[in-house]
Amino acid sequence: MTHTLFSKHEETLQKALAAIETRGYWSPFAEMPSPKVYGETANADGEAAFRAHLNSTFEIDQPTSGNTVGSELSPFGFRLGIRYPSASADMLIDAAAHAQRAWRDAGPTAWIGVSLEILARLNRASFEIAYAVMHTTGQAFMMAFQAGSPHAQDRALEAIAYAWDQLRRIPADAHWEKPQGKNPPLAMKKRFTVVPRGTGLVLGCCTFPTWNSYPGLFADLATGNTVIVKPHPGAILPLAITVRIARDVLREAGFDPNVVTLLATGPNDGELVQDLALRPQIKLIDFTGSTQNGTWLERHAHQAHVFTEKAGVNQIVIDSVDDIKAAARNIAFSLALYSGQMCTAPQNIYVPRTGIETAEGIMPFDAVAQTLAAAVDKMLADPAKAVELLGAVQNEGVVQRIDEARRLGRVLLESRALAHPAFTDARVRTPLILQLDGTADSAQFIKEWFGPISFVIATDSTSQSLELAARTAAEHGALTLSVYSTDDSVIEAAHEASLRGGVALSINLTGGVFVNQSAAFSDFHGTGANPAANATLSDAAFVANRFRIVQSRAHVEPKTLAA
Amino acid sequence: MTHTLFSKHEETLQKALAAIETRGYWSPFAEMPSPKVYGETANADGEAAFRAHLNSTFEIDQPTSGNTVGSELSPFGFRLGIRYPSASADMLIDAAAHAQRAWRDAGPTAWIGVSLEILARLNRASFEIAYAVMHTTGQAFMMAFQAGSPHAQDRALEAIAYAWDQLRRIPADAHWEKPQGKNPPLAMKKRFTVVPRGTGLVLGCCTFPTWNSYPGLFADLATGNTVIVKPHPGAILPLAITVRIARDVLREAGFDPNVVTLLATGPNDGELVQDLALRPQIKLIDFTGSTQNGTWLERHAHQAHVFTEKAGVNQIVIDSVDDIKAAARNIAFSLALYSGQMCTAPQNIYVPRTGIETAEGIMPFDAVAQTLAAAVDKMLADPAKAVELLGAVQNEGVVQRIDEARRLGRVLLESRALAHPAFTDARVRTPLILQLDGTADSAQFIKEWFGPISFVIATDSTSQSLELAARTAAEHGALTLSVYSTDDSVIEAAHEASLRGGVALSINLTGGVFVNQSAAFSDFHGTGANPAANATLSDAAFVANRFRIVQSRAHVEPKTLAA
Repeated sequence: MTHTLFSKHEETLQKALAAIETRGYWSPFAEMPSPKVYGETANADGEAAFRAHLNSTFEIDQPTSGNTVGSELSPFGFRLGIRYPSASADMLIDAAAHAQRAWRDAGPTAWIGVSLEILARLNRASFEIAYAVMHTTGQAFMMAFQAGSPHAQDRALEAIAYAWDQLRRIPADAHWEKPQGKNPPLAMKKRFTVVPRGTGLVLGCCTFPTWNSYPGLFADLATGNTVIVKPHPGAILPLAITVRIARDVLREAGFDPNVVTLLATGPNDGELVQDLALRPQIKLIDFTGSTQNGTWLERHAHQAHVFTEKAGVNQIVIDSVDDIKAAARNIAFSLALYSGQMCTAPQNIYVPRTGIETAEGIMPFDAVAQTLAAAVDKMLADPAKAVELLGAVQNEGVVQRIDEARRLGRVLLESRALAHPAFTDARVRTPLILQLDGTADSAQFIKEWFGPISFVIATDSTSQSLELAARTAAEHGALTLSVYSTDDSVIEAAHEASLRGGVALSINLTGGVFVNQSAAFSDFHGTGANPAANATLSDAAFVANRFRIVQSRAHVEPKTLAA
Repeated sequence: MTHTLFSKHEETLQKALAAIETRGYWSPFAEMPSPKVYGETANADGEAAFRAHLNSTFEIDQPTSGNTVGSELSPFGFRLGIRYPSASADMLIDAAAHAQRAWRDAGPTAWIGVSLEILARLNRASFEIAYAVMHTTGQAFMMAFQAGSPHAQDRALEAIAYAWDQLRRIPADAHWEKPQGKNPPLAMKKRFTVVPRGTGLVLGCCTFPTWNSYPGLFADLATGNTVIVKPHPGAILPLAITVRIARDVLREAGFDPNVVTLLATGPNDGELVQDLALRPQIKLIDFTGSTQNGTWLERHAHQAHVFTEKAGVNQIVIDSVDDIKAAARNIAFSLALYSGQMCTAPQNIYVPRTGIETAEGIMPFDAVAQTLAAAVDKMLADPAKAVELLGAVQNEGVVQRIDEARRLGRVLLESRALAHPAFTDARVRTPLILQLDGTADSAQFIKEWFGPISFVIATDSTSQSLELAARTAAEHGALTLSVYSTDDSVIEAAHEASLRGGVALSINLTGGVFVNQSAAFSDFHGTGANPAANATLSDAAFVANRFRIVQSRAHVEPKTLAA
């Protein structure tokens, strides 16, 4: 009864199950784009595969209206020119319904086995997907490779492991035997069937199309659901490649490939998505994107269980620090990485206006602010190195937001356009840092300013900093909180603030770990406890509502005699 | 760190964990009201305790506006005359917020230990609660005892076990150490804190005030939430006693008793409940009641995770049967028990108009219908015995519904009022059974006719019966489906219908198990896969969203050396 693909990947699955229990370091997918791991020609082959997609129609044998859509632009300055077959909501829903019965009946080990095989194939396509991620999101290559391929695959495997961890606890059958005093016992055989919810809809974003979509996609598949993948119109290719690979595996395993379909759309896709999201067949929605769209789904798609990751305001509280330069370097890296376009990138940096304690005595507020600005400036001094850190800005809206933000306060560090040595028309911007006041400017800094925009905020005290951090997280959402202090009681107060704000806390990061980074199998990404996300990647709650159990029972002979 | 109350009850908890994994028969709370188990004077003491509540003000030391409410009527024909302190939504929300911090910080073993201690005390109050259930719901004593006390306690323990089963998998901390080639590894200590969602609101019903409320109440408590219990205005006493006991245990364990409060209301409580249900502090809602109110909560209380059990249409498909009399006796018991006021009681009985196969050859439709009606009539022939099965009708609405239903079709068995030997003014009605047509009358029978109302429905074939059953369950909701057939292919088709309808299936019940009964630790009550309920009692999905995990991380020394 165990599916062959389950047996094939069982060792990896067992290690993943051990990892989610202990939450130490573990990663099955190599994060370095090393020829030794991925093959000597893997990079060149992946780039060639990416280039072959350009200016042509993406081949995918699924239901289509016969038209094509697609207007992706590389943030590095060229049109991808890829056309994707379009489809109506009805077509994809009907195709999913048709595929559903045999997929449902295949049962848990088939769902898990097929999911793991898809993942193994995605790993082999890591370079092709990395270039697709790079040229849709604007991430520099190294990040596009890591976040777009192995790290996204890690998060997918994590979701599959959580799904199996729940599925494996449900017995397929049970013998129930109730004593009846001097009469023979009542005995029944019970059968428990795991039933998927129906069709899942995965709505991707334009900054992390694979990393943010894989957990929902694979949690759906691993629990027997069919899935319609709707990428952001600006970042279709990485998910189109993903869906095609998934369909290949499904077909080879004897299933209708329409278990997974792609819904490619143009930039004005709002109505189509809203229509689809409210269909009664759509029972699960995984969304990453704006608060406006996410909240709309939460409030209208009542027929579905809706998982959202939305806007948030990530924060750093600086109270005291031994080595301000090490702290500033660490923070600078977090601000610069992918031009602050990570959902985990810090925005608000709270510093008491009376200054902070350091190993060299009190450092005034202005000096702290200047040190932070200088650290960013220094890190980005060489444009050739800077672009490998910054990547490119995903869309013009971010550039406009930088211009708008400039007016909010005193500029500590100006945002500059950089020329990219390899891509003449790349849209590259360095971070803008402003100084704001913790009391007077709160209306501005409690909002998310998505992009390379951050604020050094003068507060009355660390107490006020922590109070602002906890309240902002609780009321407006946050994925990360970071604290710098040499005082244990402040660390403990920061811990309490993180619990109140429902936000993950990083303490005194001065080395090679950055607040933006969250490692699958160890760090929970998001908590579900504040408005930035209503779920975490991943835990039991992320998977347990994606399936149901339907039982049957019938009398059988008792195994024991009457008393 | 393990709470003493956790240790005290750990053996029971371990047995419960084993039971939910194997789902065989297990029950820690004795279901017979036996003096040997509960004590020689337990029944008399319990009845006296119940009587002492009558015509007085219920003592409970919680925030109150100073006014009292209460207008409960025993369906056995007298006013309870109990007044309960009233409170505003603000008062109870503030009290919960005040109690929350210390309760949150106490952690999982305290939440589980305190919950288990409350349950042990509730078991000791089983008779008092049984009489309270009897004289609010109209259940006859034996059922009020079993369903109201030990079986409700079983369901509570089951929810606690599921909660612990999830909580225990979350490590309190982890050592994370990532190799860095020739450099020293990156090492971090991570701390994972389980954080409750906030305040839960439990909305009780008037037919099973404890059985249907305990799972949500205890799932909330076991995961660290505070809880406001809002009973149905017609069945306050059983939950008032429950809340008082919970508060006693909390106080004795050193917690603010306002972790659990009672919101007693009058019959026109709609606005108050709607106001409370939308408060941002209310993060969890457990509701049992009408589809109208349940759907309103699902569509409006966006700030909360809402668990609902609503109306449904339970169905029996009769295809073929060896012993029609045994089947009819079993069905008759299900129709008569508590006057069909169980959410699991059958309503639609589908029989092919061409008749059914029996051991004695084909039995025509009319004969099947008459056999069913006669079995009910015979079972209720002796009024003194009948009232112990029927109990009383909870409210006048049910009586009016019987009158309304009479006009729907040909009456196979008339509903009669019975005189109760012990309670002169008891509202007792025998079941009404009508004949309907599977095609012409579907608009009527796809609705729930709550109460002692059932339909024998003539269909074209068993195929049509199963198609009607699956579609009605999927579209209008159902908690139970029952099939009678001697043909394995029909049983398999019924199994498929149950998966499509997302409804639990009972097969060929002719003995001492009835379709209305679901046994904790073995039978899932509801599936969450059709409109009758969006969750099951109980599984991982019932508990996993009641808490979140908030992590912190800080660098530590690596345990291994650089490569």
